[in-house]
Amino acid sequence: MRIGHQSLKFKSQPKIIASSAVVGPFEGAGELANDFDIVHDDIWLGQNSFEKAEKKLLEEACDTAIKKSNIKKEDINFFVSGDLMNQIISSSFTARTLAIPYFGVFGACSSSMEGLALASILVESGAADYVVAGACSHNASAEKQYRYPTEYGGQKPPTAQWTVTGAGAGIIARNGAGPKVTSATIGKVVDMGLSDPFNMGSAMAPAAVDTLEAHFRDLEIQPDYYDFIATGDLGAVGHKIAWDLLEKHGVNMPPDIFNDCGLMIYKPTQPVFSGGSGCGCSAAVTYGHIMKRIRNGELKKVLIVATGALLSPMSYQQKESIPCIAHAVSIEM
Amino acid sequence: MRIGHQSLKFKSQPKIIASSAVVGPFEGAGELANDFDIVHDDIWLGQNSFEKAEKKLLEEACDTAIKKSNIKKEDINFFVSGDLMNQIISSSFTARTLAIPYFGVFGACSSSMEGLALASILVESGAADYVVAGACSHNASAEKQYRYPTEYGGQKPPTAQWTVTGAGAGIIARNGAGPKVTSATIGKVVDMGLSDPFNMGSAMAPAAVDTLEAHFRDLEIQPDYYDFIATGDLGAVGHKIAWDLLEKHGVNMPPDIFNDCGLMIYKPTQPVFSGGSGCGCSAAVTYGHIMKRIRNGELKKVLIVATGALLSPMSYQQKESIPCIAHAVSIEM
Repeated sequence: MRIGHQSLKFKSQPKIIASSAVVGPFEGAGELANDFDIVHDDIWLGQNSFEKAEKKLLEEACDTAIKKSNIKKEDINFFVSGDLMNQIISSSFTARTLAIPYFGVFGACSSSMEGLALASILVESGAADYVVAGACSHNASAEKQYRYPTEYGGQKPPTAQWTVTGAGAGIIARNGAGPKVTSATIGKVVDMGLSDPFNMGSAMAPAAVDTLEAHFRDLEIQPDYYDFIATGDLGAVGHKIAWDLLEKHGVNMPPDIFNDCGLMIYKPTQPVFSGGSGCGCSAAVTYGHIMKRIRNGELKKVLIVATGALLSPMSYQQKESIPCIAHAVSIEM
Repeated sequence: MRIGHQSLKFKSQPKIIASSAVVGPFEGAGELANDFDIVHDDIWLGQNSFEKAEKKLLEEACDTAIKKSNIKKEDINFFVSGDLMNQIISSSFTARTLAIPYFGVFGACSSSMEGLALASILVESGAADYVVAGACSHNASAEKQYRYPTEYGGQKPPTAQWTVTGAGAGIIARNGAGPKVTSATIGKVVDMGLSDPFNMGSAMAPAAVDTLEAHFRDLEIQPDYYDFIATGDLGAVGHKIAWDLLEKHGVNMPPDIFNDCGLMIYKPTQPVFSGGSGCGCSAAVTYGHIMKRIRNGELKKVLIVATGALLSPMSYQQKESIPCIAHAVSIEM
């Protein structure tokens, strides 16, 4: 299965037989509103805490994906999920609801593709026939935990990003129809010494480039192998840096195929600073928007490079720099 | 690879070609002191924060295991690790030091066996030739994050447990000599409605029993197949409950083979309330003590059932009950 140093090529080509994305009102007012299965008009989702609202996003995304797959929940072998909450409680509480054997993962905003890569390994290896992979985030729960409660009204610099209120889930299967997971590149931690939590795009860009270069090297392909390459959530600032780094390293990236989930999800008129972020960003854009474009034939070969800033508020307070990581998964039809 | 509903049987029998355990002074004064590779006499490990001390425990455990394996670090494909810190910073910062492609996992104190199970899947599937699996915890960093800083001197009930200051790591390989990973059972989240973070053994016991029963059922074996079965960190209170539940469910567990890592690591005279806990508990006991007993021929078939309480301080404050999980891995010589 392994190809090169840090990539995997899936011979069995695990199928994403169903997927789902559930988002909040701000994302519902965004660029991709029509590609999400459920758009809530209440950021509380009727819950009495933002944490419970976040869990509900993920539960709904998993439920909807399972229903769309026509697979019985009892036939699903594993649930692989992660999120940004301390102790990934959104995923663990969803695992309790689903009652499916559970692998909790954490790669910050790269959790979406860490989960999809692991789900594909489980299917490819014969460990599973069906796996649910998911990830989620909620703007208000993330702000509260990582920065300040939104009610506080703290000011932010233009390099800051807007955590997506959303969840995405996919059903990865050994047999069935749907977009195929063809390869994955597992990232190394890259840390360029940046420590500003209001500028995570800049911190994560080198990790995205490191994984992209490893992917092309390991698979012996060029970027133009793909119709579309999306980084996870670098935003405008980080995406520009990734561009510059790729150019500097001599990677020939066609401008028209390279985008970022954090730049795609909102309208330019929405006040999201540098762009979207959070586990729910790449998860909702991939399992909602990109799957739809693959299924309707618009895209044939896609690479998602989800990026994660592996800091905690504690490590930031202790003056640590921000370790970053990116995991890439290719999906083809 | 899958056998039954939630278990995996590894045909290639991935080998644990080297392992290492690193602990603090309190564990060095415990029952298993001679089985650890490094015993620190300073809980700070010369660092200026407990969080950095915890990271150093894991770095040393990984380094020592890699050295003992005689494998070059560059030849190791993946690092799989988890810990109790918010955003598993101990593991992520260690991944930065190791510069090995990294899967961050979180299963609270079950992270040790979640990691070993995933490492074995990676090796069995051909995704990796060599994987480092690790886990760690530090008493003072855990107390500070989950309860009160130790300096505060908060009182605890006798059902509380003592977080182990320790780390364990193993090198899982496709080829080589050493104890073999023969099977794994991935746990479901079990939540009996308990919500007292000072009595996690009681909360986790039903999860341990659920995974044990699934393991015996899936593999069609009886408990006496094993020489030794250790739960992760139920402590005295939780272990007694697990006993009672197993008996009630008609599982014929021989008394002399069933123990708990949290009961094994400290001396009865040490003031650890109900026993040891933390990711470092099952990790250090497994990769230090149990590996030693397997290597010297004393034990031939061992099952480790690491248990995790998937709560966060936030979910506790919001009156949520404690979702628990247990992952079992069998190791044979």
